[in-house]
Amino acid sequence: MSWNKVAVVGAGLIKMGELFDQSYEQMAAGAFAAAMASVDRGAPEIDACIVATQRGSLWGQEGIGGNTVPSALGLSGIPCTRVENACPSGSDAFRIGAMVVASGVHDVVLVIGVEKMRDKSTQEGLLARAAAGHPLYNRGETAPVLFAPFATRHMHEFGTTPEMLASVAVKNHHNGCLDPYAHFQSEVTVEQVLSSPLVCSPLRLLDCCPQTDGAAAVVLTTAERATEFTDKPVYVAGFGVATDHPYLHEKSTYVGLPATTLASTRAYDMAGIGPADVDVAEVHDCFTITEILDIEDLGFVEKGKGGPASLEGETALDGRIPVNPSGGLLAKGHPIGATGIAQITECFWQLREEAGDRQVTIRNGFALQHNVGGRGSGVSVVNLLTRDR
Amino acid sequence: MSWNKVAVVGAGLIKMGELFDQSYEQMAAGAFAAAMASVDRGAPEIDACIVATQRGSLWGQEGIGGNTVPSALGLSGIPCTRVENACPSGSDAFRIGAMVVASGVHDVVLVIGVEKMRDKSTQEGLLARAAAGHPLYNRGETAPVLFAPFATRHMHEFGTTPEMLASVAVKNHHNGCLDPYAHFQSEVTVEQVLSSPLVCSPLRLLDCCPQTDGAAAVVLTTAERATEFTDKPVYVAGFGVATDHPYLHEKSTYVGLPATTLASTRAYDMAGIGPADVDVAEVHDCFTITEILDIEDLGFVEKGKGGPASLEGETALDGRIPVNPSGGLLAKGHPIGATGIAQITECFWQLREEAGDRQVTIRNGFALQHNVGGRGSGVSVVNLLTRDR
Repeated sequence: MSWNKVAVVGAGLIKMGELFDQSYEQMAAGAFAAAMASVDRGAPEIDACIVATQRGSLWGQEGIGGNTVPSALGLSGIPCTRVENACPSGSDAFRIGAMVVASGVHDVVLVIGVEKMRDKSTQEGLLARAAAGHPLYNRGETAPVLFAPFATRHMHEFGTTPEMLASVAVKNHHNGCLDPYAHFQSEVTVEQVLSSPLVCSPLRLLDCCPQTDGAAAVVLTTAERATEFTDKPVYVAGFGVATDHPYLHEKSTYVGLPATTLASTRAYDMAGIGPADVDVAEVHDCFTITEILDIEDLGFVEKGKGGPASLEGETALDGRIPVNPSGGLLAKGHPIGATGIAQITECFWQLREEAGDRQVTIRNGFALQHNVGGRGSGVSVVNLLTRDR
Repeated sequence: MSWNKVAVVGAGLIKMGELFDQSYEQMAAGAFAAAMASVDRGAPEIDACIVATQRGSLWGQEGIGGNTVPSALGLSGIPCTRVENACPSGSDAFRIGAMVVASGVHDVVLVIGVEKMRDKSTQEGLLARAAAGHPLYNRGETAPVLFAPFATRHMHEFGTTPEMLASVAVKNHHNGCLDPYAHFQSEVTVEQVLSSPLVCSPLRLLDCCPQTDGAAAVVLTTAERATEFTDKPVYVAGFGVATDHPYLHEKSTYVGLPATTLASTRAYDMAGIGPADVDVAEVHDCFTITEILDIEDLGFVEKGKGGPASLEGETALDGRIPVNPSGGLLAKGHPIGATGIAQITECFWQLREEAGDRQVTIRNGFALQHNVGGRGSGVSVVNLLTRDR
């Protein structure tokens, strides 16, 4: 039924946070070591590497961020390519890595995501520089400004409330407490979210994900060779990417992100499944409203029902469809190039039932990973993983 | 013998130059239109896109340069991924595009390279910003400074002369006169090269490629489907990428670029051929010395013989192994993300014997395309194309 040509045989990440004490290369090396150590029958020889990074360094080299990674990992000589696709950089790099394996050219591929977000102030940091000089963006269109209108419109059309938004933050911060890799590991209450400083109405500070440094890595190989490396491979069942018109004024709707719907339809079709078959999902909760849009656009709940579903616990660890067991971007953090790979790592653990206190019930054996991003949500990527070949 | 799973069925570019009158998106649209118009049986439906660009814009958005391209081409919705790999960004995007097709996921893939180099001054431009803030690079290590020591050492070890270097510039500017897409279209003499201003000894102004705006695009599909689109497909015979330690002080040699040797060995092995089978090559002549290093490292001439071979016309249009019939980076220009795709386009035309006044003799039916780049030549990419399946 599924594509199932490629398997994940190892995955790992470093503790997310403000990692001023680690260089870009050190973070990459930490994630690489974790992924290699996770391969049950020992570290395999790596044939090629895909690096996901939105910017190689905040101090320069913005345009050259990938081909120096192999040297830092002791792998100098191997083919290495940088993939960038805004916030979904990591998830798209995973998809490209899977196609590289499926092409028959390289058998064992490392996909590694790394991002340095905190080495400069917010005003000079990565997100600010991504917008710098742009005719629309530098007129105040920061990320919260891009997502707030979706919250306002969703509230207007569907009666979504600030409490419903807050319930997403409460859940994900709770899950983050159970994830030793999460940037934030403390509970928040609905009251705390609702009384946190207003960033861009109706989004408050605790509706927003932090800026986080981090790195994550996975090892891919062919489905045929997977059991050489582990008894518990996780297979790539399908994936989909969709672009959208990049700017807000071109959007056809403010109560959904059509790129996510299109990307997930493509992924479901490739895997031969539907949203009801997904046991667990790691989705792009850059803001609380984004997770509500996501679970609607991915087909987990009807359009307009994302708010109540979140409030009623449908997406909790023990809910009908657990979403962001890792803590999500809101609590685990969002080191852009690393985010998608870290989500894949969580799916890998969940499907292998190795997620400890935050383990969800695996019934059908499918996990979904999702990111959306770019100037005004111009691109979405969905990957589907399965336990069974 | 060859890999031959993927074919090029269309290719095109825009006239290279200082394109202040065209936006990034306009340049992309121009290259896209040219590539689509070149497909003999009409413009095909595009399933997915790979965009090669080192930086989306000099005015901002440095980190987001790819997912907006489909919208500008009227293709909003299709999957689109940005690939960046320093100077070989375009050639690596081509390789990734070929693997995407070979994976069976997407049948018709557009690979498009676009770069805006001239919208800011040289001091603030792309190359300067790639180095900005770096602990070594911003101490004067511009691109000429990185390549000049190779020229000095090559002269010391092998007796390579300034006249030999100049002969590369003379040849490539001559070829550029025959290429309507070249940035520069005027002859230069050995005397003019030798009396041009010293940039970094022994490299003079005419030893250096210009900074150029440009865009180029190719259409890839499966070898099986190629003849649906054209009677004269060109097949991907093989490719190779190799990384090297990125910094100059880590290099094992100053008379060659080992990444090129390793990348080409991988490509030749994949195609089942050797350098003697190549009829025509488009190689990375960012400086005259680089082409001399290239033709040695790619196996066209013995190590140390690149200078005399160039002086004696072995690499001329009617020579033993014609190199850079398009004019190369020195005359056609080097719009980074577009460069590799533009070289592939030239190889496509040469193998189809559609290169007009600069057509070389095709004997074995193989063309080679090559780029090297990154901090101190840290990565090299070689693609091999063939006329025969």
